[in-house]
Amino acid sequence: MTPMKPPSSSPREGGPTFPLRHRLLRLAWAMTWTLLGRWTPVPLHGWRRFLLRGFGARLHPTAKIYPSVRVWYPANLTMAEHACLGPEVNCYCMDRIDLRAHALVSQGSYLCAGTHDVDDPDFPLVTRPILIERNAWVAAQAFVGPGVRIGEGAVLGARGVTVKSLDPFMIYAGNPAKPLRRRRLDGGAA
Amino acid sequence: MTPMKPPSSSPREGGPTFPLRHRLLRLAWAMTWTLLGRWTPVPLHGWRRFLLRGFGARLHPTAKIYPSVRVWYPANLTMAEHACLGPEVNCYCMDRIDLRAHALVSQGSYLCAGTHDVDDPDFPLVTRPILIERNAWVAAQAFVGPGVRIGEGAVLGARGVTVKSLDPFMIYAGNPAKPLRRRRLDGGAA
Amino acid sequence: MTPMKPPSSSPREGGPTFPLRHRLLRLAWAMTWTLLGRWTPVPLHGWRRFLLRGFGARLHPTAKIYPSVRVWYPANLTMAEHACLGPEVNCYCMDRIDLRAHALVSQGSYLCAGTHDVDDPDFPLVTRPILIERNAWVAAQAFVGPGVRIGEGAVLGARGVTVKSLDPFMIYAGNPAKPLRRRRLDGGAA
Repeated sequence: MTPMKPPSSSPREGGPTFPLRHRLLRLAWAMTWTLLGRWTPVPLHGWRRFLLRGFGARLHPTAKIYPSVRVWYPANLTMAEHACLGPEVNCYCMDRIDLRAHALVSQGSYLCAGTHDVDDPDFPLVTRPILIERNAWVAAQAFVGPGVRIGEGAVLGARGVTVKSLDPFMIYAGNPAKPLRRRRLDGGAA
Repeated sequence: MTPMKPPSSSPREGGPTFPLRHRLLRLAWAMTWTLLGRWTPVPLHGWRRFLLRGFGARLHPTAKIYPSVRVWYPANLTMAEHACLGPEVNCYCMDRIDLRAHALVSQGSYLCAGTHDVDDPDFPLVTRPILIERNAWVAAQAFVGPGVRIGEGAVLGARGVTVKSLDPFMIYAGNPAKPLRRRRLDGGAA
Repeated sequence: MTPMKPPSSSPREGGPTFPLRHRLLRLAWAMTWTLLGRWTPVPLHGWRRFLLRGFGARLHPTAKIYPSVRVWYPANLTMAEHACLGPEVNCYCMDRIDLRAHALVSQGSYLCAGTHDVDDPDFPLVTRPILIERNAWVAAQAFVGPGVRIGEGAVLGARGVTVKSLDPFMIYAGNPAKPLRRRRLDGGAA
């Protein structure tokens, strides 16, 4: 499946933003995950990958998705080897979300690929992809906004909030997130 | 019903802050919402408005309340046309909370109308009303403190935290929230 | 029971960080709390203290733990008289967490005693104890990081985030939390 882009429409009156087919697919996915995924024991990562792949996710056989994760639309999700979405992560993939090798998103974080154009009186939905490069760490309860690229080996500290891209191997924290220092990894081997 | 103000009392020993009648009413409301509201399909906004009105909320027929919303005390809630409380919003209306026309509160936000007086050794509960003016947007997982007025058309960005009032048509973000720029709406027509 | 320290190991490949005995104990605790604690009515603090003590928590008979609290490992938790963990607090006690008399942790806060060493290519788990001194207040949805000591009577405002210790009787807010002013308590009697 190809990533689904929303049509331009006005959510100001509360009307639906996505076409019926897309909404039915998401409903089927939500029911599937609730019935077959959410309550499963943590070690059954393979079973949950199977469910997500059935709805279009591209997941390496070593990718880990905890049972309490929420994935908005699996067809927009890609995870490489040893990438991990931790407990209660909200993967709000209204646009593509890619996790590269060993990218770790810790408990309670929010990957938010959608927003609204606040300068347009129609307040249309805007989506932009999120890319989390290899060895990057999004720590507990952090927030990553639409269009953000988390550079290789970068760290977004616990509760950090960013709507801008983060440089490789730098450590960020705060709301808005600011760079603290460079990560000291021996010989850049990470 | 009139808004309920707490008596002055000391929560320092863990005693109840509200009179028995009020606590029983909130218990009845909590059971009603759990049994009849929380699990209902999203489109049944009319049914949830009915439940909330039964406990004193004043809601325009076009107001939307998602099933996962939590309302502390419905009699303190007022919503005008097309106002919306999105998924998992915590509407902690220990004092009045008013949403004007087209005010939108996005998923996971916390409208917190109560705090404690930290300068009083008895640590009494203090409540102050929250007002969200028309066309304002409180984005995902933001926090609005007691006594705050969000001006017309103002935007509090995702995860933004404010305990101060926000000026009309300005965009704020961060914790604490700071003004970023003015909203560019054609001719002020929003 | 003595506080459990994790062994040095590499979570980079997703392997378990704690020995089997410890993981089974936590599993037993999680099932106990889910079946017997989480759904109990708020006033039954005594019953929940009984459950927590069975798994090693040291709790004064006046300590309060709300049913929606999550305690990672009870043997690391100590609470003195009238200390309180409010609704939906996440007490992530990978290391010791001590609440002194009248320490109050409000709804939705996160006490996080674990992190990772981001400068080590093996990314090992690091835990450090949290101490919340008497009369301190951690307000709604705040975050307290590993190794932090919240001084006597200090206040961390709603949604405040700190990974550094806070001075006694000072009020902090923001992410990262910054000092706002001194608490005005009559004669320092609090």
